[in-house]
Amino acid sequence: MRRTAILLASFTLATAQTFRRLGGCPTLGCILPPDQTDFLPNQLFDIRVEVHAPVNGTEASNEGVPDEKFSFCVQRSGKGACEDAAKFFGVQDPTLEKWTFDYFEDLFARDAGKPTVVNVASKAYRALTLKQAGSYTAKLTYNGNSQTVANWVVREPSKKPQAKNVLFFIGDGMTQAMITAARMIAHKSINGRYQTLMQMDQMEVLGHQMTHSLDTFITDSANSATALYTGKKSSVSALGVWADSSEDASDDPKVETIAELFHRVRGGPVGMVSTAFIADATPAALCAHTRNRDLFPFIVQEFLNSPQFLTPNITWPTSCGGVDVIFGGGAEQFFAGSGSPNGTDFYKTFQDSGYTVVHNKDDMMAAPNDKKTLGIFSVSNMAKWLDRNVFPQNLRNQKNSPTGDGTDAVNQPGLKEMTLKAIDILQARSKAKNTGWFVMSEAASIDKMMHVLDYDRALGELLELDDTIRASIEHLKSIGELDNTLILVTADHGHGFDVFGSADTKYLAAQPTDRKKRDAIGVYENSGLSGYMVAEDSLPNNSTMVFGAQGPNFPVQWNPRYAYAAGFSANPDHREGYTVSTSGPRLPATRGDDGGFVVNPNDHPDGFTVEGTIAVDEPQGVHSLTDVSVFANGPGADEFRGVYNNIDIFFKIADVLGLGKELD
Amino acid sequence: MRRTAILLASFTLATAQTFRRLGGCPTLGCILPPDQTDFLPNQLFDIRVEVHAPVNGTEASNEGVPDEKFSFCVQRSGKGACEDAAKFFGVQDPTLEKWTFDYFEDLFARDAGKPTVVNVASKAYRALTLKQAGSYTAKLTYNGNSQTVANWVVREPSKKPQAKNVLFFIGDGMTQAMITAARMIAHKSINGRYQTLMQMDQMEVLGHQMTHSLDTFITDSANSATALYTGKKSSVSALGVWADSSEDASDDPKVETIAELFHRVRGGPVGMVSTAFIADATPAALCAHTRNRDLFPFIVQEFLNSPQFLTPNITWPTSCGGVDVIFGGGAEQFFAGSGSPNGTDFYKTFQDSGYTVVHNKDDMMAAPNDKKTLGIFSVSNMAKWLDRNVFPQNLRNQKNSPTGDGTDAVNQPGLKEMTLKAIDILQARSKAKNTGWFVMSEAASIDKMMHVLDYDRALGELLELDDTIRASIEHLKSIGELDNTLILVTADHGHGFDVFGSADTKYLAAQPTDRKKRDAIGVYENSGLSGYMVAEDSLPNNSTMVFGAQGPNFPVQWNPRYAYAAGFSANPDHREGYTVSTSGPRLPATRGDDGGFVVNPNDHPDGFTVEGTIAVDEPQGVHSLTDVSVFANGPGADEFRGVYNNIDIFFKIADVLGLGKELD
Repeated sequence: MRRTAILLASFTLATAQTFRRLGGCPTLGCILPPDQTDFLPNQLFDIRVEVHAPVNGTEASNEGVPDEKFSFCVQRSGKGACEDAAKFFGVQDPTLEKWTFDYFEDLFARDAGKPTVVNVASKAYRALTLKQAGSYTAKLTYNGNSQTVANWVVREPSKKPQAKNVLFFIGDGMTQAMITAARMIAHKSINGRYQTLMQMDQMEVLGHQMTHSLDTFITDSANSATALYTGKKSSVSALGVWADSSEDASDDPKVETIAELFHRVRGGPVGMVSTAFIADATPAALCAHTRNRDLFPFIVQEFLNSPQFLTPNITWPTSCGGVDVIFGGGAEQFFAGSGSPNGTDFYKTFQDSGYTVVHNKDDMMAAPNDKKTLGIFSVSNMAKWLDRNVFPQNLRNQKNSPTGDGTDAVNQPGLKEMTLKAIDILQARSKAKNTGWFVMSEAASIDKMMHVLDYDRALGELLELDDTIRASIEHLKSIGELDNTLILVTADHGHGFDVFGSADTKYLAAQPTDRKKRDAIGVYENSGLSGYMVAEDSLPNNSTMVFGAQGPNFPVQWNPRYAYAAGFSANPDHREGYTVSTSGPRLPATRGDDGGFVVNPNDHPDGFTVEGTIAVDEPQGVHSLTDVSVFANGPGADEFRGVYNNIDIFFKIADVLGLGKELD
Repeated sequence: MRRTAILLASFTLATAQTFRRLGGCPTLGCILPPDQTDFLPNQLFDIRVEVHAPVNGTEASNEGVPDEKFSFCVQRSGKGACEDAAKFFGVQDPTLEKWTFDYFEDLFARDAGKPTVVNVASKAYRALTLKQAGSYTAKLTYNGNSQTVANWVVREPSKKPQAKNVLFFIGDGMTQAMITAARMIAHKSINGRYQTLMQMDQMEVLGHQMTHSLDTFITDSANSATALYTGKKSSVSALGVWADSSEDASDDPKVETIAELFHRVRGGPVGMVSTAFIADATPAALCAHTRNRDLFPFIVQEFLNSPQFLTPNITWPTSCGGVDVIFGGGAEQFFAGSGSPNGTDFYKTFQDSGYTVVHNKDDMMAAPNDKKTLGIFSVSNMAKWLDRNVFPQNLRNQKNSPTGDGTDAVNQPGLKEMTLKAIDILQARSKAKNTGWFVMSEAASIDKMMHVLDYDRALGELLELDDTIRASIEHLKSIGELDNTLILVTADHGHGFDVFGSADTKYLAAQPTDRKKRDAIGVYENSGLSGYMVAEDSLPNNSTMVFGAQGPNFPVQWNPRYAYAAGFSANPDHREGYTVSTSGPRLPATRGDDGGFVVNPNDHPDGFTVEGTIAVDEPQGVHSLTDVSVFANGPGADEFRGVYNNIDIFFKIADVLGLGKELD
């Protein structure tokens, strides 16, 4: 049953192979993990080798028959000859596997409906480790004397652990431009001097990380979370694996995550907190292993069980061991129905495994701290900070109760409440053995709201993240754990967002044509100051509506007459009016007559049209290339200075926790 | 004569006052320097106070008659009562000045042609210093008991100078997203691991600075350069002054710059290097003092003479003392003509003052190192790296010879050659007295090319900056000055640029409609890898033209079939085709039938149209809000860690050089 579900869902992956035969494999012989992979000593991983024989297309070879007699050897630098891989790792020689896949070489081939068909011969080696630091070379020899070489490095592990606990915040899609914009709307400035600052501004350490992928320079959240948690570059949609070309999305070569390592080496409890549905990529990648991030029921099973439970034919002797705290949305994977594992009541499965299960803020707060806890607070993604705090009427008529009974989830906790409670549970559960704890807390809807060009809601989520960091520091101090805890804040990728001026929303709405409306945008000397920090705008001729008055560290109002004017480097057709969306998240584009997306006629009807810069089948804005910021506090924070690759974050955390150990 | 020129030019400032009565002055009593200003002990500055009486508009008061009997006092915290300012500073009570100005309160008032008229009474106090660290309060009392209070802080100066020399690089308009894009096109990556890195990536220290202005959250380069060089927030277009409301753009209250301070305190030589015309804001702000950055002839006079030479009625006993090295474009301010001071041959004035004057790369390289040197290499901005190195034919038919003879400036140096030569001259000229030196080197056309949406040329300029930093480090090492030199790299503001995918330029050009062309944009898994690092694209069906083969640290080619797809948060109407502009910088928009800007029909005719998001009278993209990165190496570099305001850069440099001293 389980396997059927996986195979069905994997058909959605066809597009992932468009235009690229296989990531990390420019030749016809493929080694996964590919060239340039680094490991922590004793980190578990699988290997897959593939030999490709394209039947047609520009690389057609060997009449479409892949060489089944390939050989694969591994060699430690300066330690003898290249040894057959099975022998080198002390495992049985794997069974030869064979399959066929196809892909389009480019858009012309796609339009013509002419895929390239590739036949494959392959072997997979499971649950291996490299125990000693140093350089290794893996060589795949095929088609006579063709050779693919992968250079691997096992990094020297730190000899000196620095932190007991790790609190790892991810602002999904959060760029420095967004942090700057959030500061501008939520912190008072007098004559160019901020009177208060973001908590992020005040962290001890600043770094930058590069977010690009193994085989594409724009990443998704699965891919980048895998890099952050495993130290390995992978491909779009992949969670804790390198994507292979086989049809089965659960047989791709795995790699051990920081959460699995922490659980295996330290025996400490792990928490995952997210404002997204909890099977979403950023939490999922902590524990799940699949090429297909959309296999939600499969993913939530890995939160509870070892991968070997799901794929008994594949050895994988590590797991998150039943994540100790799981807080987020995504009830549709838990109540009995089409989204839950095998249609079962998965809440019950968690309860039967000893979990406290909670469904609203009050019950979460009241839950005992000494038990594993599953808190699922809504169907799909959780409500946004702006709706919970400024427009609570938008929580009504959502039919998103986490019980699945069709009522509304009106009593949802915020990121702050979830994170502080997670700390309390992990603290209680780790105290006896003094193992420390690891928790990942994700402000997921910075990304989700940027995707729909709802800049206001995205910045609200960012400010909630900042508030959560501030409160967490205070809380850790109060429980005496601040000096034991590495606090890390970063993002997984960007969106090409920036503020470029102000919009006189009153003037904009009053103009008759799009070109006249654009006159409302003030740039440079006419951008003015933030209208979000004054309860009534002091500028002349103002007719401001005041929504909410949260401060400090949040805007005093969200709909000033002079709003910030912001934009996106890549967007679908949409309209800009620069007023806050009072009825809930924006929907910028809807399907048009040609089947592609066009301006949603109901979104900002007073605004001006901005035509898109991406394919018309993209309904949302997309991710961007920019490096993202890293902020760190506490023991080990110094490791996070400077500019580095996202994979380095894994190694830095592992070093700060002392998880890497060379073995004989 | 000089004064006439200044007054005429200042009329262009009308728009700078649109929608804001006066920056830093929300009430009717104004103190410049405003509340929240910080000083270095002994830094020279002027004060202007103004009392406003609007005749009409929402703030109309006192029947339009300003209170001439205002009083103004200053008080050091904990040191007695508030003392009349003239007495406090030991200067004569200034003469009362009176004038009238007008501005539009908002766009409706502008459309109706109904300005608000304001009558002003004012006094200016010149060439003052605050000698002791501490808190000060300035109080302006007017209209009976109305009071405006400005809190000033004189910062504790560092007691321990750390560096002898400062090499200050400014990438104008350079954001982290641009640095990321430049890395992607110019550095080889294998399976997600860069094989080489930007020099910026390898600097010892990373910081962020906030770029917003005194009275608007989007800055221009004048305003931000003033913040970087003086530690003072100011207004758009202002150079080394706080903008007042008087008509004369040369009487605004001044503040001493880092270059003036270095010259006055250390007696060391100063250099300015830029790829812009040299009267442009970023170099100008080092030495010039005017509210109007467009007063080019006035500005270049300040490079040679004290401001007192230009405005003899205003005391200002500090100056750059005749900048020792001036390298850049902008010959139109030097050869006799409408752009030069009083129409004179200003090259001759420099020669008469003892300067070596050079006009091309070879003469620059051959110039003696022991003399002051003026190198002006073109009319207007200098040629771009991409044109000098890849499309040299574009240097022809420009009629931009720096001599003004209408021939072409074909032998222009790059930023690297100019910077290294400047170092040699400053080193030779500072050796005898061991004063050290200060040089600012600006990659100006990162900004200028982003303005015209010529992303390729902008990234070429950024890569040239990076190459210059790398070469400067090597050169300083070779002359034994690396350990004495603080090297600082930052930007003055951003542009909302980011890369979001790839464009199949062949497919894009072949499609019949804009909506079909957008299908050529590949995002996420279809963004692929950088085509700029392979001489012939290895992807199928490729018909690449190879332009240039510079490497390392520059692209191997600039026109791959799969180009990066990038965009801007704010832009005029334009077209995107994502091929490199081979005939010179892009011109995205030209004037349309309605008088506003529309798509330039000659720019990327095969591309798709993107309508603008800013007022139709803006022909270019505009600046953005994002914090920008700071990179530092060498003695004192540690001061530049973390997140801070752009004004802090001045204080950090001054501390590293030990320029602040408390006096009795």
